[in-house]
Amino acid sequence: MGTLWAMPTSRRFTLREIAEHVGGAVLGEPQVAITGVSNPAGAGPGDLVFVEDESYLASLGSSRAAAAIIAEGIDLPPGMSGIRVRHPALAMARALEILFPPERTFREVSPQAFVGRGVVLGEDVGIGPGVYLGDGVRIGRGTEIHPGTTIGRGASIGQDCVFYSGVHIYQGVSIGNRVRLHSGCVIGADGFGFIQERVESFPEEPIRQHKVQQVGTVVIEDDVEIGANTTIDRAALEVTSIGKGTKIDNLVMIGHNVRIGRHVILVAQCGIAGSSVLEDYVTLGGQSGVVGHIRLGRGAMAAAQSGVTKSVPAGLTVWGMPAFDIRRARKALALLEHLPEYRKLLLELEERLDRLENGPGAGGST
Amino acid sequence: MGTLWAMPTSRRFTLREIAEHVGGAVLGEPQVAITGVSNPAGAGPGDLVFVEDESYLASLGSSRAAAAIIAEGIDLPPGMSGIRVRHPALAMARALEILFPPERTFREVSPQAFVGRGVVLGEDVGIGPGVYLGDGVRIGRGTEIHPGTTIGRGASIGQDCVFYSGVHIYQGVSIGNRVRLHSGCVIGADGFGFIQERVESFPEEPIRQHKVQQVGTVVIEDDVEIGANTTIDRAALEVTSIGKGTKIDNLVMIGHNVRIGRHVILVAQCGIAGSSVLEDYVTLGGQSGVVGHIRLGRGAMAAAQSGVTKSVPAGLTVWGMPAFDIRRARKALALLEHLPEYRKLLLELEERLDRLENGPGAGGST
Amino acid sequence: MGTLWAMPTSRRFTLREIAEHVGGAVLGEPQVAITGVSNPAGAGPGDLVFVEDESYLASLGSSRAAAAIIAEGIDLPPGMSGIRVRHPALAMARALEILFPPERTFREVSPQAFVGRGVVLGEDVGIGPGVYLGDGVRIGRGTEIHPGTTIGRGASIGQDCVFYSGVHIYQGVSIGNRVRLHSGCVIGADGFGFIQERVESFPEEPIRQHKVQQVGTVVIEDDVEIGANTTIDRAALEVTSIGKGTKIDNLVMIGHNVRIGRHVILVAQCGIAGSSVLEDYVTLGGQSGVVGHIRLGRGAMAAAQSGVTKSVPAGLTVWGMPAFDIRRARKALALLEHLPEYRKLLLELEERLDRLENGPGAGGST
Repeated sequence: MGTLWAMPTSRRFTLREIAEHVGGAVLGEPQVAITGVSNPAGAGPGDLVFVEDESYLASLGSSRAAAAIIAEGIDLPPGMSGIRVRHPALAMARALEILFPPERTFREVSPQAFVGRGVVLGEDVGIGPGVYLGDGVRIGRGTEIHPGTTIGRGASIGQDCVFYSGVHIYQGVSIGNRVRLHSGCVIGADGFGFIQERVESFPEEPIRQHKVQQVGTVVIEDDVEIGANTTIDRAALEVTSIGKGTKIDNLVMIGHNVRIGRHVILVAQCGIAGSSVLEDYVTLGGQSGVVGHIRLGRGAMAAAQSGVTKSVPAGLTVWGMPAFDIRRARKALALLEHLPEYRKLLLELEERLDRLENGPGAGGST
Repeated sequence: MGTLWAMPTSRRFTLREIAEHVGGAVLGEPQVAITGVSNPAGAGPGDLVFVEDESYLASLGSSRAAAAIIAEGIDLPPGMSGIRVRHPALAMARALEILFPPERTFREVSPQAFVGRGVVLGEDVGIGPGVYLGDGVRIGRGTEIHPGTTIGRGASIGQDCVFYSGVHIYQGVSIGNRVRLHSGCVIGADGFGFIQERVESFPEEPIRQHKVQQVGTVVIEDDVEIGANTTIDRAALEVTSIGKGTKIDNLVMIGHNVRIGRHVILVAQCGIAGSSVLEDYVTLGGQSGVVGHIRLGRGAMAAAQSGVTKSVPAGLTVWGMPAFDIRRARKALALLEHLPEYRKLLLELEERLDRLENGPGAGGST
Repeated sequence: MGTLWAMPTSRRFTLREIAEHVGGAVLGEPQVAITGVSNPAGAGPGDLVFVEDESYLASLGSSRAAAAIIAEGIDLPPGMSGIRVRHPALAMARALEILFPPERTFREVSPQAFVGRGVVLGEDVGIGPGVYLGDGVRIGRGTEIHPGTTIGRGASIGQDCVFYSGVHIYQGVSIGNRVRLHSGCVIGADGFGFIQERVESFPEEPIRQHKVQQVGTVVIEDDVEIGANTTIDRAALEVTSIGKGTKIDNLVMIGHNVRIGRHVILVAQCGIAGSSVLEDYVTLGGQSGVVGHIRLGRGAMAAAQSGVTKSVPAGLTVWGMPAFDIRRARKALALLEHLPEYRKLLLELEERLDRLENGPGAGGST
């Protein structure tokens, strides 16, 4: 870790303090000083590492780590201190939160920001230089907005949000509390709505695309995180909505009128076409796509690169293009590689059958 | 509708005024006041709804809608007023245009914009704060540019365009009239052109990528709309072109030297590799891809997630990866799920054939 | 060329001067003036064209080009001058470099840029208006940063880089020399790291996603070029790294902890999930995807739209979803179109076999 790059300055804690924070039991020396985090192979003095299963134990033995977070049922190497917990990964996430507490960059409203008329800002809002806030924008207390982000007129932003640089929010969008938006994401651009219009007087171009005004909006609930360069379009008439706690990766596309439930996971570069519904706890893998006007039930999943062409019942995982039950898809798609052999065998069988049917012993059954 | 969120303030019209605008016939009371638009289930008083086919009639009966736009051959529920038209969706789009006329946000050149030397601005141009216009940029009358958008030197922009925030246009690009660019789209970045160069004196890295300067440009014709975070690269030597009336969704990638015709539809996350040609009225589905140096004929379509690896004749629709005639693809891809069963049957047939050939009655035909 | 649009002003050279620069031999008149570059069909007077193989010779005969760069073993049409070289495409790239030398737009630090405390700028750095440089940013000599780009605190940028408008670099990222970043690319946003956390007291939402602080960084080596709207996430603990000379197209997604070697080519819209390793000279085709935690060996390739689900040995090219050896994939995927025919034949064979087995002559072999 320390050998790779200069980590952000961390606070310094004793092993006991961290154990208390993560809800684990100290093994060994509670006064060990922890100043960083690493994996076993790269750890330096002062680093805390975590070991989820026995496969990491070997590297832990030769590690220079100060201490390890370790699952129940696993033993530490002799002489090493640690913290025993039920869920090492979760404990590690919690340890990171106190070792590297999120730092605010902007705590005031920059005089170089562009603030419209009637803007209402809560206490402790930080607005970077070059930010644009349209007329009537409302921002809750503790929210931080980095340089170059724009928020259209009448948009409403909750408390304790962080919007990084270059986020673009269109007019009237509504965003809850503790929402994190990464650079380049675009919330509330027009949905892709056009009606084909015949123009009979113009035979060269007999059909044109007539734009449908997108007069709906986007509503994003609390605790949502949205990745870099993801786009979420405003509804045609009503609302494109993202439920509480949902996490969205980079370069994802969410079409107009889509309704996404709570605690949904959307991995990078997936896309959801207009008016589809994803219930709570749905997961979409990277580069997967969902056609319009279908519904994915609670906890349904689509594996990476799936093309979901019809509704998926709650709890089912699908894969493939078109997508179907992943238990069958794993077997079916593994056969693709062998298609040429099966084709060859099929043609051989046909030939053998021809011979059998026409041969002396077989007798003509046709 | 009204129950879901506060719609943008709309104007107030009588049913007769809307009927005249959309070219339909009033059914019932022409003085009904219309102040919003909705679907039948969500409609409140004052809302206009539209009913394209009989499947919506049931919900219309219990709707609180003030009136309905309705297709020929369908009857309104007793007591409801409406407008009878040939194409309800198109009529609805037109009704939206007068109920929610597009609003200009910027009508002047902000003193906080960065305007280069020799910039020429038409009448009634609106430039938001933080916009950058390079030297020699020309912008036609009535065009509106939102905060944080940048336009490189020498670019030429037509009349009545709307560029939302965070659009980036490189030097020398040419854009027509009534073009709408959504946030984050990038027009005119370098095409991806590199030549492999052997560096024999350096055996560790024997080949390097030698950049080919991209000295061409991008030309976008009238009435084009381009979605959020879409990228259109400049040509190597000549022109990447987008024809009149073409509509492009979000996160689309158009490579260098691509030539796109008029009234083309490109759905979200599709990509077109260098030097390919899409003739008028082509449609690409979401997440589809087109390899370089091929041609899609007038009206050709590729369904979602297709991988188009060779030219497509005019009028043909393809699907699949690699893509082929969708009529065959629908049947073929539906069989993927059953491959394991077919494999099993094939091996069973082989075994049965073995037995037949070797069995007492069959006589050895091999 | 000249008929299509006004090319950027080029310098004027003699054929001899260009031949010296590209390392070729003049054929014909060394004093011919060259002022532009084109393809044979579009060439006007003063244009240099290039002919890689004999298929272009016909168009060259009727071209108005001033001269041609031509491969060994090909003859020029009578009366035309030219330059004979071993690698025409590479020679053309070099000719473009002197005919259209890259132009700097910004040579000074704009007073309208936002420069933080402790920023260190090398000589001849150009910073456009509206650029934001966070506290402690360091930028090497000769680097140019276009308007609207933001660089987070503590980031380090090398010499002679060009960052176009609307690039967003997060805190602490490290970038080498001669790196070109196109508009909208985002370097160093948080990796997509969440741990599922059971919340037993809340049965409606029993599981939540607990964010893992992403305290690592991104390191980009020398001579890398990154396309528009591409995103490269910061590592969870250590480093997401991009090796020297690697070229990345538009809308590419690189997940956290990914390690990419030297001279790698990543074509548009491809994606690489967390912790995977691409060794030197790997190529990923457009819209392909690589799952997390695998390794692609030196020189491995994945063709367009591939879904790479397991590690690929050095030198192997794969295709398909899931991906396998492209030599087998070309044959296998070409059979997809014929699946319905094979299914039909298979069922026919089964029927014929049934009849044979049950027929009078066959005797019951089961």
